[in-house]
Amino acid sequence: MKIGIVGGTGDIGEGMALRLSPKYDVIVGSREEAKAIATCETCRETLQEQGLACSLLGVSNQHAVDEADVVVLAIPFKHAAPTLKTLTGFEEKIVVSPINPIERTTYFYYAPPPEGSAAMMIKGMLPPSATVCAAFNNIAANRWQMLDEELDYSVAVCCDDDGAKQKVMDIINNVSSLRAYDAGPLAAASIVESITPLLLNIARFNKMKDVGVRFV
Amino acid sequence: MKIGIVGGTGDIGEGMALRLSPKYDVIVGSREEAKAIATCETCRETLQEQGLACSLLGVSNQHAVDEADVVVLAIPFKHAAPTLKTLTGFEEKIVVSPINPIERTTYFYYAPPPEGSAAMMIKGMLPPSATVCAAFNNIAANRWQMLDEELDYSVAVCCDDDGAKQKVMDIINNVSSLRAYDAGPLAAASIVESITPLLLNIARFNKMKDVGVRFV
Repeated sequence: MKIGIVGGTGDIGEGMALRLSPKYDVIVGSREEAKAIATCETCRETLQEQGLACSLLGVSNQHAVDEADVVVLAIPFKHAAPTLKTLTGFEEKIVVSPINPIERTTYFYYAPPPEGSAAMMIKGMLPPSATVCAAFNNIAANRWQMLDEELDYSVAVCCDDDGAKQKVMDIINNVSSLRAYDAGPLAAASIVESITPLLLNIARFNKMKDVGVRFV
Repeated sequence: MKIGIVGGTGDIGEGMALRLSPKYDVIVGSREEAKAIATCETCRETLQEQGLACSLLGVSNQHAVDEADVVVLAIPFKHAAPTLKTLTGFEEKIVVSPINPIERTTYFYYAPPPEGSAAMMIKGMLPPSATVCAAFNNIAANRWQMLDEELDYSVAVCCDDDGAKQKVMDIINNVSSLRAYDAGPLAAASIVESITPLLLNIARFNKMKDVGVRFV
């Protein structure tokens, strides 16, 4: 299975490339192909130091969409709509959104678009044959990149197609100690996205770092 | 410290009375005082079987408010506003809301009132000298009552007054293995409340029971 990462040179994108490329063919996309190639080189070296083989290819964001079966949108919310407007070819693809619309005053709060969630907004921007799946929303960017540390978190997955949902849950369950949980249809993604500002508040007000969540 | 439980004869109320009365003076309120007295009798017997002493008093909801330093509103969302309209005397009290506005179609979803959350609605109904604190929102009713089982969960606490928040966090940290986390101001309570329908969905779609949450 080929996993494309749009925005694969950002913190979360690079971390996902590190964690996924030992098990899947990972296609790292960027607005600038040279950046994607450089990120893949860095990841390859890091993984080699750990004695891990990997499959990584650095390309443009469009190329990452074209080549992949599963496309992860590893971009901040404010870039999501502008980026998607520049890309085509999402037909029949599974599109994973780890995107959280968050604002901040004296605390972090959830600031969803009119569609109710980033995931629902993205679904509205893609062709009907694309299947959007909210996943990986509540994992701190830092944790993705710390290969020495287990990712011992729960991952809530929201999607309207059972087959696509299962494929994404299988990927999740293949990464470190992550455990995937079916959290219902895509319309329920707003709750999953909103947990991230809660975790940021808990980290901030309790002097913790990179707080994650487990369902027990 | 005296803890009053409005709606103390319901599932969550009775469970909280069981867990709190060995450590605090608990005043169980009900619309019908006789019911509150009966609930206290049942709790006392259950705790005696476990060899636990307790402090329990069954009274009317109004009496529970009047006597308590901390008032827990252990009532369903749909009864919250009607019940509060029948009660007075909240001045200077700490009022704890474990209330979650939830609706259900093919899945559970968060359905907050216009104020943004149950906690904010309640704040608007009480005198300014009352301090509302959202807490205990994400613990399944069943778990409260299973005294044999540790409550090994995280509890997010939202409140605008640091002193009141600390008092509630101290109570939480005194119950079983619960761990309290400062989750920011009361305006952030919507996220905490919304986790409950997510947990209900996860329980339902993954064939689990009484799912709770841990921040790690």
